[in-house]
Amino acid sequence: MKKLILVRHGESEWNKLNLFTGWMNVDLTEFGKQEAFEAGKLLKSEGFRPEICFTSYLKRAIKTLNQILDAMDMDYLPVEKSWRLNEKSYGAIQGLNKADTAAKYGDDQVLLWRRSFDVQPPALEMNDERSPRMDPRYAALSDEEIPLTESLKDTIARLMPYYKGTILGALNCHNEVMVVAHGNSLRGIVKELKGMTNEEIIKFNLPTATPYVFEFDDSMNVLKDYFLGDQEEIARKMQSVANQAKKK
Amino acid sequence: MKKLILVRHGESEWNKLNLFTGWMNVDLTEFGKQEAFEAGKLLKSEGFRPEICFTSYLKRAIKTLNQILDAMDMDYLPVEKSWRLNEKSYGAIQGLNKADTAAKYGDDQVLLWRRSFDVQPPALEMNDERSPRMDPRYAALSDEEIPLTESLKDTIARLMPYYKGTILGALNCHNEVMVVAHGNSLRGIVKELKGMTNEEIIKFNLPTATPYVFEFDDSMNVLKDYFLGDQEEIARKMQSVANQAKKK
Repeated sequence: MKKLILVRHGESEWNKLNLFTGWMNVDLTEFGKQEAFEAGKLLKSEGFRPEICFTSYLKRAIKTLNQILDAMDMDYLPVEKSWRLNEKSYGAIQGLNKADTAAKYGDDQVLLWRRSFDVQPPALEMNDERSPRMDPRYAALSDEEIPLTESLKDTIARLMPYYKGTILGALNCHNEVMVVAHGNSLRGIVKELKGMTNEEIIKFNLPTATPYVFEFDDSMNVLKDYFLGDQEEIARKMQSVANQAKKK
Repeated sequence: MKKLILVRHGESEWNKLNLFTGWMNVDLTEFGKQEAFEAGKLLKSEGFRPEICFTSYLKRAIKTLNQILDAMDMDYLPVEKSWRLNEKSYGAIQGLNKADTAAKYGDDQVLLWRRSFDVQPPALEMNDERSPRMDPRYAALSDEEIPLTESLKDTIARLMPYYKGTILGALNCHNEVMVVAHGNSLRGIVKELKGMTNEEIIKFNLPTATPYVFEFDDSMNVLKDYFLGDQEEIARKMQSVANQAKKK
């Protein structure tokens, strides 16, 4: 039976500070490393044996994957990295505090930027120091590919060629595939697999460092999907993500 | 100008305990992680920008590479892993103390096992719990490819197809390539690049976690090779490796 394992990265420094992160390359906290390691132990104890892994260009996802593979004693696995799995770009609000931004612009505006399907936050300038154009890791991207801001719709649009070509391609020749990425890039995959509407996916909050497993039949129809771990703890984590943009 | 950067993994738990390691999958010590991170900081400060990295299936090399890439802020780089870059198999003496083994069999015998070009240590049984056949990461290898023991000659023979095809192939399309591996697999590359005799290579001791750089002209002739870092400290590290099998 084919299985796809999705994991959102563990807590990052800016999750903790409640800042908009997007494409900013911030590190995991010690707690984030620990939750990632625990996710790996859980996958191992449940008998999962991925054969290939995918992650983004952002260190909070890469290090989450490294922690998982270490805990599973499977760090020899092939890993492919792509900018297309990066988090949604939050444009010019990257680095701003979520609660402060809500206080300044109002909950409704910030909720639109965070949780609408097709509203983009204000864009970065191409030569802003936070622009991907200033970062050598994105040197191979054309100006058209460089996101200066993104709606969830934009994020999903740049993810889909990679998901459909590379990740589903890997599921053709492997039984278990693992993707470690971000709240919004993983939303794109979940929306596709569960046939969710735009309204449904924006209300769906993926908990950090919690393996989310899809099982498929031979024709690649989804048989079932489930989170691994303590279900109450998972519900608490999902609610915590949903509450981040509320004013304090 | 093309550059090849070779790095031997940092101190492992069994380096510290002075045990024969070979294909046994032991972890880095805290000191080993720290020396690896320092090697990354050095590469970064000297302006190195590898474009692709290669490592073995063994966690002490993989984690050394992860630490280096973290320190360089380049963990988005593509990484390819191959069992062909693994350490030389020490067969049935894997897990034994180097000094005890020298006391039991004599310095001369152990020196032959460790430092001759074509003498193999006693072989593992195929179903020994230490045999690679018992480890799922080597499931794709044929019985003929599974090393139950190896001389340095054997190690170099299984490395060469990967070195010549994949690593030199990568140097065709990239300016800087980094290989993080093991004392004996890296000896194979150094022997080839420096045209060393069998006698010369067995006397050559690569220091841990120390970048060793080869620079090439356009026809891939070696222009120069050098270690990065404090040259006295490097000499001390090389001598320390050479002394490991001496009786205490």
